[in-house]
Amino acid sequence: MSEYKFDQWQDLYARRTLLTKSSAIRDLLSVTGRSDVISFAGGLPSTKLTKLKDVIEATRRAIENEGESALQYGPSEGHEGLKECVVALMKDEGVEVRADDILITDGAQQGLDLLGKVFINKGDPIIVEAPSYVGAIQAFTSYEPDFVPIAMDNSGLKIDEVRKSLKKGLKPKFLYTVPNFHNPAGVTMSARRRKELLALAEKHKLLVIEDNAYGLLRFEGQRIPSLRTTDPGVVYLGTFSKAFSPGLRLGWVTAPRPILEKLTTAKQAANLCSSSFSQRVLEEYFGSNDWKKQVKKLSEIYKARRDAMLGALKEFFPKEATWTEPKGGFFVWVTLPEYMDTTELLAEAIREAKVAYVPGRAFYPDGAGKSSMRLAFCFPEPDAIREGVERLAEVVKKQMALYESVTKKLRL
Amino acid sequence: MSEYKFDQWQDLYARRTLLTKSSAIRDLLSVTGRSDVISFAGGLPSTKLTKLKDVIEATRRAIENEGESALQYGPSEGHEGLKECVVALMKDEGVEVRADDILITDGAQQGLDLLGKVFINKGDPIIVEAPSYVGAIQAFTSYEPDFVPIAMDNSGLKIDEVRKSLKKGLKPKFLYTVPNFHNPAGVTMSARRRKELLALAEKHKLLVIEDNAYGLLRFEGQRIPSLRTTDPGVVYLGTFSKAFSPGLRLGWVTAPRPILEKLTTAKQAANLCSSSFSQRVLEEYFGSNDWKKQVKKLSEIYKARRDAMLGALKEFFPKEATWTEPKGGFFVWVTLPEYMDTTELLAEAIREAKVAYVPGRAFYPDGAGKSSMRLAFCFPEPDAIREGVERLAEVVKKQMALYESVTKKLRL
Repeated sequence: MSEYKFDQWQDLYARRTLLTKSSAIRDLLSVTGRSDVISFAGGLPSTKLTKLKDVIEATRRAIENEGESALQYGPSEGHEGLKECVVALMKDEGVEVRADDILITDGAQQGLDLLGKVFINKGDPIIVEAPSYVGAIQAFTSYEPDFVPIAMDNSGLKIDEVRKSLKKGLKPKFLYTVPNFHNPAGVTMSARRRKELLALAEKHKLLVIEDNAYGLLRFEGQRIPSLRTTDPGVVYLGTFSKAFSPGLRLGWVTAPRPILEKLTTAKQAANLCSSSFSQRVLEEYFGSNDWKKQVKKLSEIYKARRDAMLGALKEFFPKEATWTEPKGGFFVWVTLPEYMDTTELLAEAIREAKVAYVPGRAFYPDGAGKSSMRLAFCFPEPDAIREGVERLAEVVKKQMALYESVTKKLRL
Repeated sequence: MSEYKFDQWQDLYARRTLLTKSSAIRDLLSVTGRSDVISFAGGLPSTKLTKLKDVIEATRRAIENEGESALQYGPSEGHEGLKECVVALMKDEGVEVRADDILITDGAQQGLDLLGKVFINKGDPIIVEAPSYVGAIQAFTSYEPDFVPIAMDNSGLKIDEVRKSLKKGLKPKFLYTVPNFHNPAGVTMSARRRKELLALAEKHKLLVIEDNAYGLLRFEGQRIPSLRTTDPGVVYLGTFSKAFSPGLRLGWVTAPRPILEKLTTAKQAANLCSSSFSQRVLEEYFGSNDWKKQVKKLSEIYKARRDAMLGALKEFFPKEATWTEPKGGFFVWVTLPEYMDTTELLAEAIREAKVAYVPGRAFYPDGAGKSSMRLAFCFPEPDAIREGVERLAEVVKKQMALYESVTKKLRL
């Protein structure tokens, strides 16, 4: 038995290990599994539309057609057949790439880790959105960058602020953005801002990393061309996790060849290759299912959930709160009055209201985000969303009232 | 199209990216796919014993029993059911662990990357065997350690040399060893050396990482207890790649709890979790197949291949060459006369003899290993092994004769 009560290895850990904290999302997963808790915490895609029989069928075909190679090591770059599925997906997104431009990864998350590994030396500045995807912050933190968070508004990242920083002489290794249906902010970068960003990128030789995890899941309005559509120098991250299944852990990176080669070498050191088995099963599943129809249906399901959440927020949340109105994706970003602390509130929300969410602080590398929270509407059914928001609103209002009464007393 | 002829991002790469070279193994994989080449290069396990029908059946059960959760994100620690399979495997190895002591990884390779990430700061010394597993060198290189290679002989790592280094004041972050059927050296650490190593570890608070990828595949003789059996402070890496299938990309780490927590956080940043789908399929496959019987049969197959290789080496190789005689695993380590360069020889071997192997240099972080080569006997059938060794011997002898005639001329 390995019963070590004390951590006698404290002196051996690398600096990065002491910097990295277990994420709020992960700590919450233990709670969100409870059936009595309504969870707005994890961004768990609905896997209900994935026909289980079709997955078994796809496995049968993968094994029968490809036999032992499905069980063998594969190339670090990824399985050719799956890369062709990516080519088709990207084409639908308006981006022409070839199979050779693609590296298959363990979800988009591994792409983030590999990009950190390839580009970041300790202390290198990188520009991230504020707030930013918590998994990207975690992945990059391992390589000890100097995070330069730049604010967003309802049109996405404030490009003016980026311009100012670059003019002042900032030389970041890259800029990381989630332009569509931002995680966690729920906003989308406008076409105009995208154009401005690419102009800046060209002028300052700024490498842009575009994470398009949610791009396919648009509920309304016209698609805005991805950054990669306009500029092939952009590094693009995609994933099969949202539109098909996160359980297969497959995503991809598209990047200019020289960068892709470095990423592939880094991937080899990280896990040699992604699962040959999963890659072939997914290839077969995509080949025999109308993925566009499936994505359309999924978008309808998520749209109904978003509508339920926005309706309930309007009905139950105090007028002092504000929130974003996403046109796709999984997340609404709610901001409470400045004096509120959503990290402290969370314990109360779970205990009293049996509702979970992710506190805003998790999404900032610098400890900001105190009075905000991310609400994921992707997983619960509309009725549960309504009930959860109502219950959460009660806790919020109770805390606000408590604050008011305390400050009133202090004033007396 | 992303046609970038020049690498305009040269200035942006991290130091580690410029240190990391694409491995000889990977560059060779393109050649070894050719049907006219007999490959002793990649350590590809035989997947012939894995009953393909049983994999389809296991998938059917995984999907029917676990339904959507097989397609959903899972805990970073790994799927409980698969961890119980690991507990059973480890028990058979003589090690008592609980599911909580295990982190499921993408093969043992990811375990190596995570260990590098958790422990190594730039310039930290780590002790590795010379030669050492090329994937470990690659994984650790990403974190820029100061490699301290220590020689091996037929009884494994020279513990006296380790002792000397520690006495001189070396404070390594860890010592990495493959005690059983070493990759690439083919030797096994004796029971006596293991005891000495653990005594040293205790005295100097030295963290030992034991990579037991090949431990199950013993052809003869008594099993020597793993380091972890004796000392629960040892970090132990295992894999399903050799005894079942590398294509599922699943392995594990067993470590003292405080270290396991750090590894789990690092895993989350690297790829969130290993494939829920693969984990459940493997759990079902293990549950319904007699894995001990399968491992026994596999060992018999590999033993026949080893015998073919050792026999052919004796029959065809020049008397100046020496080689190890592995009692299990996949690899024989051949050493040619000092003046021979196996990296240069490789091009000749592929062109003239249509035989591939991995040059010794790949297995040393410091450029040593010039006149050695790793021959993997795991994949070709015995007849092909015999033919391949015969053809390779011709090239070796031709080069040796060439050297002799040139030096003779120079002497005249």
